[in-house]
Amino acid sequence: MAQPQTASRGGLLIRGGTIVTHETMFDADLWIVDERVKAVGQDLPPAPGIEIVDASGLLVLPGIVDAHTHIKLDTGIYQASDSWLEGSRAASFGGITTVVDFATQFKGQSFEQALAGRLAEASESVIDYAFHMMVTDVPEGSEEELGVLPELGIQSIKLYTTYRPNYYADDATLVRLLEAAGRYGLVSLVHCENDALVTAQTAALVQAGHTGWAYHGASRPPLAEQEATSRVLLLAAAVGAPVIIAHASTGRTAQLVAEARAAGQTAFVETTPQYLLLDDTLYEGSEPWRYILQPPLRAGSESEALWGLVSDGRVDMIVTDHCDYRKDQKLALDDFTKTPGGLPGTETSLPLMATYGIAAGRFTWPDLVRLMSTSPARIYGLWPRKGALQPGSDADLVLFDPAFEGVIAADDLHMVAGYTPYEGMPVKGRVVSTLRRGEFLVRDGEPVSAPGSGTFISCKSLRSGPRFWD
Amino acid sequence: MAQPQTASRGGLLIRGGTIVTHETMFDADLWIVDERVKAVGQDLPPAPGIEIVDASGLLVLPGIVDAHTHIKLDTGIYQASDSWLEGSRAASFGGITTVVDFATQFKGQSFEQALAGRLAEASESVIDYAFHMMVTDVPEGSEEELGVLPELGIQSIKLYTTYRPNYYADDATLVRLLEAAGRYGLVSLVHCENDALVTAQTAALVQAGHTGWAYHGASRPPLAEQEATSRVLLLAAAVGAPVIIAHASTGRTAQLVAEARAAGQTAFVETTPQYLLLDDTLYEGSEPWRYILQPPLRAGSESEALWGLVSDGRVDMIVTDHCDYRKDQKLALDDFTKTPGGLPGTETSLPLMATYGIAAGRFTWPDLVRLMSTSPARIYGLWPRKGALQPGSDADLVLFDPAFEGVIAADDLHMVAGYTPYEGMPVKGRVVSTLRRGEFLVRDGEPVSAPGSGTFISCKSLRSGPRFWD
Amino acid sequence: MAQPQTASRGGLLIRGGTIVTHETMFDADLWIVDERVKAVGQDLPPAPGIEIVDASGLLVLPGIVDAHTHIKLDTGIYQASDSWLEGSRAASFGGITTVVDFATQFKGQSFEQALAGRLAEASESVIDYAFHMMVTDVPEGSEEELGVLPELGIQSIKLYTTYRPNYYADDATLVRLLEAAGRYGLVSLVHCENDALVTAQTAALVQAGHTGWAYHGASRPPLAEQEATSRVLLLAAAVGAPVIIAHASTGRTAQLVAEARAAGQTAFVETTPQYLLLDDTLYEGSEPWRYILQPPLRAGSESEALWGLVSDGRVDMIVTDHCDYRKDQKLALDDFTKTPGGLPGTETSLPLMATYGIAAGRFTWPDLVRLMSTSPARIYGLWPRKGALQPGSDADLVLFDPAFEGVIAADDLHMVAGYTPYEGMPVKGRVVSTLRRGEFLVRDGEPVSAPGSGTFISCKSLRSGPRFWD
Amino acid sequence: MAQPQTASRGGLLIRGGTIVTHETMFDADLWIVDERVKAVGQDLPPAPGIEIVDASGLLVLPGIVDAHTHIKLDTGIYQASDSWLEGSRAASFGGITTVVDFATQFKGQSFEQALAGRLAEASESVIDYAFHMMVTDVPEGSEEELGVLPELGIQSIKLYTTYRPNYYADDATLVRLLEAAGRYGLVSLVHCENDALVTAQTAALVQAGHTGWAYHGASRPPLAEQEATSRVLLLAAAVGAPVIIAHASTGRTAQLVAEARAAGQTAFVETTPQYLLLDDTLYEGSEPWRYILQPPLRAGSESEALWGLVSDGRVDMIVTDHCDYRKDQKLALDDFTKTPGGLPGTETSLPLMATYGIAAGRFTWPDLVRLMSTSPARIYGLWPRKGALQPGSDADLVLFDPAFEGVIAADDLHMVAGYTPYEGMPVKGRVVSTLRRGEFLVRDGEPVSAPGSGTFISCKSLRSGPRFWD
Repeated sequence: MAQPQTASRGGLLIRGGTIVTHETMFDADLWIVDERVKAVGQDLPPAPGIEIVDASGLLVLPGIVDAHTHIKLDTGIYQASDSWLEGSRAASFGGITTVVDFATQFKGQSFEQALAGRLAEASESVIDYAFHMMVTDVPEGSEEELGVLPELGIQSIKLYTTYRPNYYADDATLVRLLEAAGRYGLVSLVHCENDALVTAQTAALVQAGHTGWAYHGASRPPLAEQEATSRVLLLAAAVGAPVIIAHASTGRTAQLVAEARAAGQTAFVETTPQYLLLDDTLYEGSEPWRYILQPPLRAGSESEALWGLVSDGRVDMIVTDHCDYRKDQKLALDDFTKTPGGLPGTETSLPLMATYGIAAGRFTWPDLVRLMSTSPARIYGLWPRKGALQPGSDADLVLFDPAFEGVIAADDLHMVAGYTPYEGMPVKGRVVSTLRRGEFLVRDGEPVSAPGSGTFISCKSLRSGPRFWD
Repeated sequence: MAQPQTASRGGLLIRGGTIVTHETMFDADLWIVDERVKAVGQDLPPAPGIEIVDASGLLVLPGIVDAHTHIKLDTGIYQASDSWLEGSRAASFGGITTVVDFATQFKGQSFEQALAGRLAEASESVIDYAFHMMVTDVPEGSEEELGVLPELGIQSIKLYTTYRPNYYADDATLVRLLEAAGRYGLVSLVHCENDALVTAQTAALVQAGHTGWAYHGASRPPLAEQEATSRVLLLAAAVGAPVIIAHASTGRTAQLVAEARAAGQTAFVETTPQYLLLDDTLYEGSEPWRYILQPPLRAGSESEALWGLVSDGRVDMIVTDHCDYRKDQKLALDDFTKTPGGLPGTETSLPLMATYGIAAGRFTWPDLVRLMSTSPARIYGLWPRKGALQPGSDADLVLFDPAFEGVIAADDLHMVAGYTPYEGMPVKGRVVSTLRRGEFLVRDGEPVSAPGSGTFISCKSLRSGPRFWD
Repeated sequence: MAQPQTASRGGLLIRGGTIVTHETMFDADLWIVDERVKAVGQDLPPAPGIEIVDASGLLVLPGIVDAHTHIKLDTGIYQASDSWLEGSRAASFGGITTVVDFATQFKGQSFEQALAGRLAEASESVIDYAFHMMVTDVPEGSEEELGVLPELGIQSIKLYTTYRPNYYADDATLVRLLEAAGRYGLVSLVHCENDALVTAQTAALVQAGHTGWAYHGASRPPLAEQEATSRVLLLAAAVGAPVIIAHASTGRTAQLVAEARAAGQTAFVETTPQYLLLDDTLYEGSEPWRYILQPPLRAGSESEALWGLVSDGRVDMIVTDHCDYRKDQKLALDDFTKTPGGLPGTETSLPLMATYGIAAGRFTWPDLVRLMSTSPARIYGLWPRKGALQPGSDADLVLFDPAFEGVIAADDLHMVAGYTPYEGMPVKGRVVSTLRRGEFLVRDGEPVSAPGSGTFISCKSLRSGPRFWD
Repeated sequence: MAQPQTASRGGLLIRGGTIVTHETMFDADLWIVDERVKAVGQDLPPAPGIEIVDASGLLVLPGIVDAHTHIKLDTGIYQASDSWLEGSRAASFGGITTVVDFATQFKGQSFEQALAGRLAEASESVIDYAFHMMVTDVPEGSEEELGVLPELGIQSIKLYTTYRPNYYADDATLVRLLEAAGRYGLVSLVHCENDALVTAQTAALVQAGHTGWAYHGASRPPLAEQEATSRVLLLAAAVGAPVIIAHASTGRTAQLVAEARAAGQTAFVETTPQYLLLDDTLYEGSEPWRYILQPPLRAGSESEALWGLVSDGRVDMIVTDHCDYRKDQKLALDDFTKTPGGLPGTETSLPLMATYGIAAGRFTWPDLVRLMSTSPARIYGLWPRKGALQPGSDADLVLFDPAFEGVIAADDLHMVAGYTPYEGMPVKGRVVSTLRRGEFLVRDGEPVSAPGSGTFISCKSLRSGPRFWD
C-alpha cells in the first residue's frame, strides 16, 4: 500500500474538473488548504507550493454521506466481521467520506458509555463518522437523558417498531421518545415494521418447516411496513416531533411520508439501492442467501414505484443500510431465522446509482449528490461542513469518471463480505480518487489512507442556525 | 448622481462579508471578474489591480430575482407611470438585480412582436430582465406557436382565469395552453380567480352603488381564488403540465398546491408581501385607495395561515406583483372598478421580509434567499446564472446591513408611486449596495447605475440540464 | 285495448306475492282501498266485495319512481315525438308509476307559468308526475322567486353547467342559485359537464370535418364531467347547499360525491342504465346514431367502475334520463351536432337492471327497489307516499315475474322511438302488471290505463317532517 | 307484580298509535297474532276474540335492539351484580326487547362451551338475546373454528386491542381473525384503544400516586382510541373484512370510519349516550366514581363533534355498553385501576335519546329508530325479524309517550346499580308499555313479564339474503 498522502503545505488545487453540487454542475477549480475548501473558482491561480491535481474529464462530487451504515455491527446476537479500518477503507472506495453509523445503548448503559465504546472502535477509521444513538433503555420518567445527546454531538436517535426484546419500542415508548427527542431538537429515525405481523408470519413459516432462505421474503409482508409507517407518522404528528422513516422498501411507504408532509408534518424518508435494484423473485432463484435483510426484497412493482418517487423528489435520501457479514456467516445455515440480516453496500452504492439512476435517465447528477450527500448532511446537522463544496466546507470529495464501463464483481471489492448482491451487474462510472479533509484516501484507484485519520464529527445542534427543514 | 461604476479591470474583491446562500451562511470573500463570480473563498489574495470592497458586518446576498413584476405596465386600459429606467432603478434600491416581467401578446400579435416591443421599452433598464409571455391570442390549432418561445429565451407563459375579455382564458383554452406549454417545456403561471364569481360580485356591488374603494375587498371573494386554484390544478394534472399558482392570498390556495405536489404533480405557488403583511381591515380604514389590487387583501387569519405555509416550506416564492401607478392615478376616483389595481413593491420587499420574516423568527436568511432569489431563478431557468453566487454565476449581489433600523416612508423611496402601502412600518435592515454583473447600481445608498446597462436574459431551456423540479 | 280497471269498491287484495321493500323481501298480502295501501299482512282475510289478485310466484315491488325523465321534451331546439299519453303508457310498461320530470322556465317566464304549461301537457298522463324546475331566468337579486317553488309542490331545481346559451349557468349563477335553493329547502340537480371543454372539443371536431355520429363520444371528454362535478361540489359546499350530481357516466364522478359525503356534505349521485350497460366502442360500430346522448358513452372500464360503486352503495339512484326521439329524428343527418341527444329508456330500465344488476349478482332486489324507487322518492320528498308499500302509501306497485326470459326488441316496446339502444340484449324478468293508486295500468301485459288518470304529485316540503338526509 | 300477560288467542290490535319506522312515521294499527306482526294497516277491523290496546297519543316503535350490552358480566376479574332476570327486566323498562350481548370464550373453551354457559345464564331472561362471540383463544392455524359460529347463530366476533392479557389481540391476531371472520361471513366488532398507550399512561399515573377516580380520564388518552381505530381500519381493509368500531368517544374516531367507507370499505361505528351527554369535567367534580368506563369521558368538544356526526348520519348505531355494577362495587376503593369499568344504561338510553336527540332537534324519531333498533338489527343479521314492524316481524314494540316530562332518578330505575350517571337530568318522554313477541313485558309502566319468556335469537347468516351493507 502506498503511503498516506496529505495535502501539500500550500494546499491542493483540483483543476479542470466539473463540480457537481446537489443542484447544479459547473466547471471550476477547487483550492484546498488545511483540510478545508478555501476557494472555488475558475482558473484559480496556483499558490506557491501548491500541489495540482488534474481532474480533467472527471466529476468532482462532495464526498458521499452515507447516513445509515452498520460498520462492525454487533446486534447482540450477530457480529459483522469487518473492523472499522476495513469498513471505512471499503467505504472510501465507494466515494463515502462520512458515515452516520450507530452507537447502540445496550441495556443498562448511559449514552456516554454507548458512545465511548463506539468511538473506541471507530478510532482506526479512515473516513469521518457521526452517530445516531440507538436508544433501548430510557425508562418512563427519565426522558431528560436524551438532553445530553446534543452535547455529545448526536442529533438523531434510532427507534425500532420490531426486534423484540432488544430493540422493540412499543407505541407508548415511541410516543414518549419521539416527543422527548423533538423537545431536545433531535430527529428520530424509525425502522418501521409491525412487530406482531412479522413475528407471527415468521412463526407460521417456522411451524410449517419453511425456514429456508427462500422463505425470507414471505416472513415480513409489505403490510407490516406500511402499517408501522402509517402509525409512526400518526404518533409523531400527535406529539409534533420530526421523524425519518428508515429504508422504505415499498412505494406506499414513501407516499405516506409525502402525504404527511403535505399536511405540514416534518417527515422524511430514505431508501436504499437494494430496494431499487433487486426484487423478490431472487428468493426463488438459486442463491436466496444473498438477499437476507429486513425489510426483505419486494415485488418488482414496488421497485418501480420507488424509482418513481425518487425521480420526482418524494424520497429524501439514498443510504446503504450496509452490514458487512462475511459470506460464510451468511451461508452457515439455510434458515432465514438464523441468518444475520443486512447486505454489504458502501462500496457499490455510488456506481450503481450513477448507472441505474443517472445513466438510466431516472435522475441527474445533482439529484444524486442531493440524495446521497447533501440531504443526509443537512437532515443530520453535518452540513455545510459535509455535503457541500463551498469555502469552509471540509474538503471531502470524490473524483469520479463517468465514462468508465465495468461490471460489479465481489473479487474487485474491498468489503469483507466476499460476495455482493449485485454480482455481475454492469456499471457505468467509477471512483477514481477519494479525498477526506484534503487527504487522499483513494488515489487513482489505489488505497492510500492512513488508519485512524478519520475523526468523529459532532452533528450540529438542530436548534441553532439554519436547517432546511426548520 | 455619481458616475456609473464598473468593476475595475482586475476585478472586484468583496471582502469580509457573510455570504448567504439559499441554504446556509458562511464568511468568505467573493472575487468578481468580467461580470461574473470568479471565485468564492476565504481570505482570497487580491489580484493585481483589483478593487477591494469592504463588506465587514454586511450580508452578501445573491441579487434578488423578482419573478412577478409589471414595470411600465400597459394593461390595455391603464398605464403605469414608471419608465423602465425609473422602475429598474427603484428595484435596484430593493436589492433586485433581475426581474421576470411580462411581455404581453396583444391580440393579433406574434410572440416575436410582443417580445420585440417589450425589449425596446426595457432597453434603458439598469437591471437584468427576463419575460413571461402573457398569452392572449393562440387560437385552437395553432398551439405550436408556443414552440418558438424557448428560442426567444422565454420559458413561461402567463394565463388568467379572469379579466374578460382581454386576458381571460376559458377552461378549454387553459387545457389547450397548459398542455402545449408543457409539451414545449414551458411552465404556466396562472392568475387564479373565478371570473364569473368576481364579475358577479362586482356587478352586485355596482348595482347597489357600492363602488367606493372600501368595497374592493368584497368584490373578489376568497372562494373565487380557491375554486380557480382547485380547477387549474385539476386541469394541469389532467394534461400532465407543470403549473405555478400566482400570488396566493389565502392559506387554502397554498395548501391545495401542497396536496397536488404530494400526489406527484409538478406545481408551485408564490405569494407576496402584501398578503403576508396587510389585511382587509384596511378597507375599513381612512385610506382604502392604497390597497386596490387583485386578488384583494384578505382577513388577517389568511395572512397568518400564509406565514405558516411560508415558514414550513410550502410556499415556493415570494414575489412583488409590483405595479407602479402614481398616487394621483389611484386617487382619481373613489371607485374600485375604475382604479388601476396593483401596488408598488420592488423597493420595499427585501427589507420588509428581512424584518417580518427573519427578525420576527418566521424564517431564516437562507430561507429568504431561497424564496426571493434562488427558487425563482431555478423555477424559471435562470439559475445558476442568477440566484447563486458560485463560480460562473453572474456577479449580482446585495450588500445588506441587517443592523439598520428605520421606518418605511414613501418620501425615501424611488418608485414613482409617491405612496407605499407600508407607510410607517418599522423595518430592520437596509440595502447598502447592489451590484449587477459586477457593476454597482447602488453604492453605499447612492444610485450609480448606467441607463441601459441591464440586459435581457434568456431563460434556459427547461429541457436541457438539471432542473430541480424535473 | 281493454277498459281501464279501477279497484273494486271493496278494494283489492294482492295475494300470495313476495313483497320487496328497499331493504328486504317477505311474503305478504297487500290490501288496497281507495288508491292507497290499507294494510300489509299475512293471509289477510278478504273483506266483502274485495277483488282478489293472485300474485303467486310474483314479486310485488313499489312502483318505480323515475326521477329523471324528459317526456314530451322541448329543448327549445328539438322536440321529442311522444305525447304524455304515449310517454306515460310506455313508462307504465316499465313498471314506472311516477316520474319526476322537468318543467322548464323559458326566458321571461315565471315559475307558475312554466309549471302551468307543463301541467297542461301532462294532464293526459296515466302515471303520476312531479317536476323539477329547470331554472333559466332568475336574475341576480331576484332569488327569492325560488321561494314559491315549495308552494307549487316543487322541491328541486335543475341547473346546467353547459348548453349555452339557453341553460348554461355560470359559476356565479350556480353559487347564487345553489345557495338560494338551499335556503328555501330545495335540492339542486346539476348536469355537470364543463361547457368550455365540450364546446371547444366539439368546435375542433367540426373544424376537422368530424361531425359524424361516430365522433360524438370524442366531443365531450370525461374530464369535462369530472371537472364540473368537482367544481359543483366545491361550490355547493361553500354555500352549504344540498346537491345532486346528474347522470354520472364515470366512476370518478361518483367517487367525488362519496368523498364529499364523507366530509359531511349533503350530496347525492344518480346514474343510468346506459352508462352501466353500453360503452364507447359502440361509436365505432355500424350504428353510432343509436348512442347520441350527453354525456356520451364512456370506456368500458368506466362502466365497470360505476357498477362497483352501485354495488357497494356509493350511487344513490338509477334513473333513465329518458328522451323519446323517434328513430327518424335521430337518423335525419349523420352529424352529432345536429342530432337530438337522449335515449328512450323508461320501458327497458327495470328489466335491464333486474337482469344485469340482480341476476348478474351485482345487487339484490331490495337494492333495486332502493335505487329505482325508494331513494328517488325520499330524496325528492315524495316518500312514503311513493316508493313505499306501507299503510297509507299510494298503492303504486309492480307485479314482476323474475323467471321470464326474453330479449329486448324495439318491436315489442311502446315508446315512440322505434328503436332501442339495447336491441337484442337478453333479459330475465318482465313486468306482468302495473298498478297506480290501486288502478291497473298494465294487467297481465295488456294496457288498461285511462288517459288522464295520472295526477300531479306535490313534493313534500323538505323542511317539514323526517327526511332521510336531513 | 301483575301476572304476565300474553296476547289473547285472537291476537292483539294496537290501535290508534303512530308507527315509527327507521324512515318515517304514519298512523296505523298493528295486528299481532302468535308473537308476530300479522298486519299493519289503517283502521284494521278487529278479528273475533282480539284484544284491543289503545295507543292513542302514543308512538309505536319497534323494540329497541341494544347491540352492545354486558348483562351479568364476568370479566374474569369483576362480576357485575345483576342476574339476567334483573338485567332483562330493567332493559324492558328502557324499551329494549333484544340485546346483542356477549358470550366470552374463556381460555381453553370451545365456542360451543362458551355459548352454552351463556345460554344457561340467560335462560331466565324476559327479553330476547343474541350474542357476539368474544374470541380470546383461536391459535394460529385454527381459524376455521370460527366457521362454527354461523351454525351457532352467531354472526359477529368481538376483538380487543387492549386489556392484556385476557382479551388483547395483537396486530397479527387481529389480521388473522379479521380475515377469517370475513371469510366466514362474520363481522368483527373491535374495541379500539392502543394498549401500550393506555398501559403506559396508567402506569405513569400509578407511579405518581395518582390512582384516584379523578385521574381516570387522564389514563386513556384520545390518541389511544384514534390510533387504534386508524390501525384497525387499515388492517381490515388490507384483508377485505367488514369491521365495526366499538363505542366511539371522539369525533375523529367516527370521521375515520366515514373516510374508510368513502374509500369503499365496509365499516361501521357505534357510539353511546354517555359519550354524547357527559364529559370529562365530571372527573373534576365531587363524584368521579360515577364515570369509570373505557374509553373514558372526553372533552365536551368531542361530544359536540359526535352529535354532529350522529346528526348527519355518519354514526351507525347508538348502543349502551351497559354494565350493571352496584354502587358499592364502584365505591369500594377510590382507585380507578381497581374500580370495575362500565356504566348502567339500558333503562335510560331511550328517554335520554328522545330528549337530547329528538326534542333537542339533533335528529328525528325515525333517526332514533334507525340508530337504536333497525341498524343494529340489520348489521347483525336480526332484521327484519327484529328492528322492523312489518308483517312477519316479531311483535316487539314500545308504546312511548313523547309528552311525558320527568327527571332521571336512580330511585325510579330497575337496574341493580343503585345509581345512574344521569341522575337529575330532565327527560321528555317515557316508555308506557313494552311488548316482546306480542307479550307485554311492561304494561302502563308496570312490570308484567314472565321469567324465562325471552329466547335466544339466531343471527341470520350474513351470506344469505339481502343485507344492507353487502
